[in-house]
Amino acid sequence: MTLSPYWLRDNCPCTGCRDPRNGQKLFQIGELPDHLSCTEQVEQDGVLHVVWSDGHRSSYPLGWLAEQGEGDGRTEQGKRLWEAAEFGRGIPEADWAAYLADPAERAAVLGAVRHLGFAVLRGVPGEERQVLAVARSFGYVRETNYGELFDVRIEPDPNNLAFTSAAIAPHTDNPYRDPVPTLQLLHCLRNDATGGDSGLVDGFRAADLLRTEHPEDFATLTATPVPFVFRDRRTELLAERPLIGTDPLGRIREVRFNNRSIGTLRLPPAELDAFYAAYRRFAAITLRPELQLTFRLGHGDCLVFDNTRLLHARTAFEQDGHRHLQGCYADLDSLASTLAVLHRQTAALDTLEQLFEGEGAAEYLGEEVTMAQHMLQAGALAEAAGAPAHLVAAALLHDVGHFDGTGLELMQGRDNRHSHTGAEWLGRWFGPEVTEPVRLHVAAKRYLCAVEPGYRERLSEASEYTLQVQGGPMDEAQAARFAALPGAEDAVAVRRWDEQAKEADAPTPPFAHFRPLLAELMR
Amino acid sequence: MTLSPYWLRDNCPCTGCRDPRNGQKLFQIGELPDHLSCTEQVEQDGVLHVVWSDGHRSSYPLGWLAEQGEGDGRTEQGKRLWEAAEFGRGIPEADWAAYLADPAERAAVLGAVRHLGFAVLRGVPGEERQVLAVARSFGYVRETNYGELFDVRIEPDPNNLAFTSAAIAPHTDNPYRDPVPTLQLLHCLRNDATGGDSGLVDGFRAADLLRTEHPEDFATLTATPVPFVFRDRRTELLAERPLIGTDPLGRIREVRFNNRSIGTLRLPPAELDAFYAAYRRFAAITLRPELQLTFRLGHGDCLVFDNTRLLHARTAFEQDGHRHLQGCYADLDSLASTLAVLHRQTAALDTLEQLFEGEGAAEYLGEEVTMAQHMLQAGALAEAAGAPAHLVAAALLHDVGHFDGTGLELMQGRDNRHSHTGAEWLGRWFGPEVTEPVRLHVAAKRYLCAVEPGYRERLSEASEYTLQVQGGPMDEAQAARFAALPGAEDAVAVRRWDEQAKEADAPTPPFAHFRPLLAELMR
Repeated sequence: MTLSPYWLRDNCPCTGCRDPRNGQKLFQIGELPDHLSCTEQVEQDGVLHVVWSDGHRSSYPLGWLAEQGEGDGRTEQGKRLWEAAEFGRGIPEADWAAYLADPAERAAVLGAVRHLGFAVLRGVPGEERQVLAVARSFGYVRETNYGELFDVRIEPDPNNLAFTSAAIAPHTDNPYRDPVPTLQLLHCLRNDATGGDSGLVDGFRAADLLRTEHPEDFATLTATPVPFVFRDRRTELLAERPLIGTDPLGRIREVRFNNRSIGTLRLPPAELDAFYAAYRRFAAITLRPELQLTFRLGHGDCLVFDNTRLLHARTAFEQDGHRHLQGCYADLDSLASTLAVLHRQTAALDTLEQLFEGEGAAEYLGEEVTMAQHMLQAGALAEAAGAPAHLVAAALLHDVGHFDGTGLELMQGRDNRHSHTGAEWLGRWFGPEVTEPVRLHVAAKRYLCAVEPGYRERLSEASEYTLQVQGGPMDEAQAARFAALPGAEDAVAVRRWDEQAKEADAPTPPFAHFRPLLAELMR
Repeated sequence: MTLSPYWLRDNCPCTGCRDPRNGQKLFQIGELPDHLSCTEQVEQDGVLHVVWSDGHRSSYPLGWLAEQGEGDGRTEQGKRLWEAAEFGRGIPEADWAAYLADPAERAAVLGAVRHLGFAVLRGVPGEERQVLAVARSFGYVRETNYGELFDVRIEPDPNNLAFTSAAIAPHTDNPYRDPVPTLQLLHCLRNDATGGDSGLVDGFRAADLLRTEHPEDFATLTATPVPFVFRDRRTELLAERPLIGTDPLGRIREVRFNNRSIGTLRLPPAELDAFYAAYRRFAAITLRPELQLTFRLGHGDCLVFDNTRLLHARTAFEQDGHRHLQGCYADLDSLASTLAVLHRQTAALDTLEQLFEGEGAAEYLGEEVTMAQHMLQAGALAEAAGAPAHLVAAALLHDVGHFDGTGLELMQGRDNRHSHTGAEWLGRWFGPEVTEPVRLHVAAKRYLCAVEPGYRERLSEASEYTLQVQGGPMDEAQAARFAALPGAEDAVAVRRWDEQAKEADAPTPPFAHFRPLLAELMR
């Protein structure tokens, strides 16, 4: 296998090279010696073991070596480009209540923004400032000179065409900002005027069409920094960026299109002629009927869209009614992070479910129940006792450290499978209110046997055996120290359910019963 | 003169083509006819008059035609690149109180951040959350997964190396965000441990050195998108960007350098070798002693720096004392806007001062004082009466509409010089509390003559004459309408000073006396 040595070493997943909590590297690239090479390379059981010329040892799963980069999903490569007909059966939308309650619904909405560039949330409470709550459900509000939020309605002395009743052609917002706000939200509080429909155009699709039909125009627009300007009494913004931004590999990554705020380009006349010809052809493409997706926002609807990709528009409206939107800006990076964490949490729950159904069927240390039965019983006992969600979860998951499989997905080139206990593994998904009772549930047995007369006598035979292995009952000082630990009381509660959850053939709910509770705790 | 027709027309400054309030264009580029041409071009008195093939007429000052683009100041072109020796006599710094009080000091600090990449504010109150006040003095806080602000001190379970006592090599922050926060602020609350000094490296200078010494490495780093990653329980960020970002003209625009969070690059082995060789050479340049600017932040110091350009570092510290910084992120665009507005305000005050000293020396409509004497007297009378700042300003500036010069700087291709009254011109700099009394001070005379017995008799001869021209005293209905206007009361106050301010040879303070008051009102 031919591998680039510095690349391979830079990706060493050992805990000396990477912080297992966040995957951050613990060495500087310049600290690696010159002329670094592998002195030994052995493949065994799906793992490549390497000994380096400086003596360091690394191990890489072969699966990781074969992985492909997925990109950050921000260029055209990570998108589905569209024209309006794509949405003949409806636009991506979800109910706000379902979005809040259901991780799958949340992932679908955020995934639509990421891949299609937009989604509409219906039934968002039609109250002022709610748009901020929508933004904060996946990220952070980006404040601008228009405020933390802005009202889109007719204003007596508008500093922007948005605040009139005029039609607005497809455009992106704030091109004079750098960094430009990458997401925009528009929440409709009222829309009972004639007109005032919303329009969206896929700017990546428009740029893609320009590239196909007039490659020289595409080249001109990607190569020409254009000044965008905005000024009023308190503001003087200027950003110089191309209308079509590409990454170093030439992939479309950002479209800035706002006729109103293009400033004065300074180039030789022939280059200006070429730019304006390309600009006018691009503008004409953005206005093609087949690219115009038009829909109407009603009371409570909130449109979320990618301001680096989609152009948005509105039709003019009569003053026979009122139209009032509240908008704010936010950023795509946090939205993508929220989406990735949702996917990761779903994958973790899938892994747990598989563990309960697979390894969990194995014998549980000499008890008359399987591991899965034992843990499901413990969770059910906690639930029946009216315990709070975090204790139900701790009871359900308290023995997860017994599963071999919990280490499996930790690898991926950034973790060591054997250095993590069950609690530490759970710490990737749950807070200390869940992990600490799990971490302390063995100590809790030693504590209870010390302080509660008759407790030890009630242990199962297997549990009495492991008590010896674990150090026997605590002495007085140990018990006092234990009782002072955060989570000790919860650990004791979990421990009591643990002892009781060893009844052969007791009926238990399936793992799926606990998924919503676990999903909620993961947030 | 050979000019590009669509370019020229797109920049037509007439009020039909541009909103005079904010310079935004009022037409779509696609609305211009095909085959647009100039049918007539005449230069007269420094202005180019054009008649277009569609009948539209435009006028452009020749000075505007000759202007050069200045760029947005974000690439290397707009910067002064440096090595540490540049600051042998000290780093750019200012006292917080002076920064708040003096626009020139404020402009100097923001200008240093823009051109050198950093500045230090001394004497910021050493209290928690003050760093947010510093950010808000020129822009908006960018919230991230680290919070609205973050504490840089030793934490028991750090999710980032920053929150330990370890040394940190020069790096930029949050490269895994896109958009990356373009500014960082670090406010020192306590620093009495041994060690813990701060370091800065000009990343643009380092990139510039790489380009000179190893052009092929520079080309590799600008052409290779690199994945930067960060993950913890609630976060999974990924941005794919080159280490050295250039604009379409090849100018250095952004440096991302953070060894800890470079993810796994996926390329053929030969390309990985080339990338890692270039990356290691660039890393070595960032560590050259002559590039390391080192200084110490003490209690109350706040460092503001460009996170797209400067790498920041800190030395390790002993736990023999405490080190506690509070940091937050913000963005360069708003900082640049604040700086531009400061410059614009200074220029406006300079213009006013010149008008008072130039045209202001002219006779004032038959009175025994010059225009400047009259206005300075009015301002001084208001001040002596203990009037609030906005009324002193209104009294001082009430006749500014008489100056021809007030229209002069409005042009610059975006405004019409003859369509603005004095109040409207002042509206570019001052709020309605200043402009409305100015706008109404003539009406106030007609009002006072109507409602106050004996007022008319006290008018000067010239003022009695102009009263006739202006429509004479108001009738009852007019007076009632006037009294109901916002600012009417203030306009009456200004008017009284106006009448009194016609005393030949009365001593008055110079215009400069009023500058700080005007500057404060402009904020």
